[in-house]
Amino acid sequence: MIAWFNGDLLPLDGVAIKATDRGFTLGDGFFETMLAQHGQVTHFDAHMTRLHESAHIMDIPLPYNTDEIRKAIDDVLTACQLKDKRAALRLTISRGSGPRGLLPPLEITPQVLLSASDVPDHFPSAKLALVTIRRNEFNPTSRIKSLNYLDNIFALREAVAKGADEALLLNTQGHIAEGSVSNIFFIKNNALYTPRIDDGCLPGVMRAHVLQTARKLGLNTHETSMGVGIIQTCNEAFLTNSLVGIRPVHQIDGLQIPNQVWTEKLRANL
Amino acid sequence: MIAWFNGDLLPLDGVAIKATDRGFTLGDGFFETMLAQHGQVTHFDAHMTRLHESAHIMDIPLPYNTDEIRKAIDDVLTACQLKDKRAALRLTISRGSGPRGLLPPLEITPQVLLSASDVPDHFPSAKLALVTIRRNEFNPTSRIKSLNYLDNIFALREAVAKGADEALLLNTQGHIAEGSVSNIFFIKNNALYTPRIDDGCLPGVMRAHVLQTARKLGLNTHETSMGVGIIQTCNEAFLTNSLVGIRPVHQIDGLQIPNQVWTEKLRANL
Repeated sequence: MIAWFNGDLLPLDGVAIKATDRGFTLGDGFFETMLAQHGQVTHFDAHMTRLHESAHIMDIPLPYNTDEIRKAIDDVLTACQLKDKRAALRLTISRGSGPRGLLPPLEITPQVLLSASDVPDHFPSAKLALVTIRRNEFNPTSRIKSLNYLDNIFALREAVAKGADEALLLNTQGHIAEGSVSNIFFIKNNALYTPRIDDGCLPGVMRAHVLQTARKLGLNTHETSMGVGIIQTCNEAFLTNSLVGIRPVHQIDGLQIPNQVWTEKLRANL
Repeated sequence: MIAWFNGDLLPLDGVAIKATDRGFTLGDGFFETMLAQHGQVTHFDAHMTRLHESAHIMDIPLPYNTDEIRKAIDDVLTACQLKDKRAALRLTISRGSGPRGLLPPLEITPQVLLSASDVPDHFPSAKLALVTIRRNEFNPTSRIKSLNYLDNIFALREAVAKGADEALLLNTQGHIAEGSVSNIFFIKNNALYTPRIDDGCLPGVMRAHVLQTARKLGLNTHETSMGVGIIQTCNEAFLTNSLVGIRPVHQIDGLQIPNQVWTEKLRANL
């Protein structure tokens, strides 16, 4: 696969990240995952807005503007022969190299890497497992797609060990937060429920789009704190992220969630 | 500086981490920081024990045994001309490359990097600031020196913005946890207090050594949950880590901590 690294196209295998890069030594960076279909990025503007918000919270200036990023995406998709397919794009920004210690140097040189890969057309409905790993809703890192994914890795491995496809994480107060790589939604009594951002879920681009779509379809939407009781009382549940769009959930911790009426209606209207 | 990377000595600037390394893309790795004095690593066995515990929790097999690591340290200190000085050693282990997604590949090739740098002889006493960033005491990552240091970076930057040298982090329950790069101790009524590991502090090698030293000196020690009230009622406070040993604290959030009797006694007996 061909990647774009600080302005150059080169084989992904040939990209050399410095051993002093704070993205490697401290996880000091962030990324965006985007879906491209036939060369077009779905919700490109929303991804760029979140990219700038993350850069602002992290205090890492973006070295490339939106037009340059758009051009880089086009170059990578062409070089990878992915312009006619569904492609997952990952745009990674690290703070760049620094000396020992946590404080960044005064002058930083952010590193920017864009890579692409195939993504399936269809994701089967998911089985979730409640896991012991908790989202930390207190910190700004919960609202950034940062390079600190170890808790999510632990969560997904725990879910897979339980025979599930995805983890369901609570926050430190015991409220439902999100999946390891997805936001979570519930349908109950013909209304849509999803955790508040302040409950520690990532402000997903697809999450926002689904909320908007639901309102257009006349569905009442609630961003609200929820305990695990919602698992017993919901009629439907689904996951979202930029690559899968809406993914129905058919089981949570052994409990069947058979109904997918609103889930399919929302999916058809995305 | 010369580093040791997967068995080879080469300039640190010339070490190339793959862009697909999960240490870079997801923070999927861990490290040890050790102090070498005149070529000898202080508390080497304790560091190796924690290294193996971290590897076990992370499920990353260590590709090198203790003798090989000892030899690598000797080679790096010699190559960096640091055998006659105080040197900070950093041994970083990442899970190695993987495809897109959180689940590691079935076969992994961990990457091992050892680097060294000068470290000062003396650290002045510290001024602490209570910060808004919270330690997440729920997750195993709180007990691993993992590559996910973004919360600590946010914490230290917040403390520095308040004119302090180090941050004091609470956990999600409001109990005192640790500093951004150090454990915290208090002296009160001739007894030593430090947060429990379960309160979200890293199980520091120097933390364990200080507890042992205090007991040898006849000081009662308490690993216990503490609210911020201890700041007003303590007689002394100090920080520990492997590089500074014991570092006295003279101020916390504007409150003077003038007494350093036990702090100095412990420091003299380390």
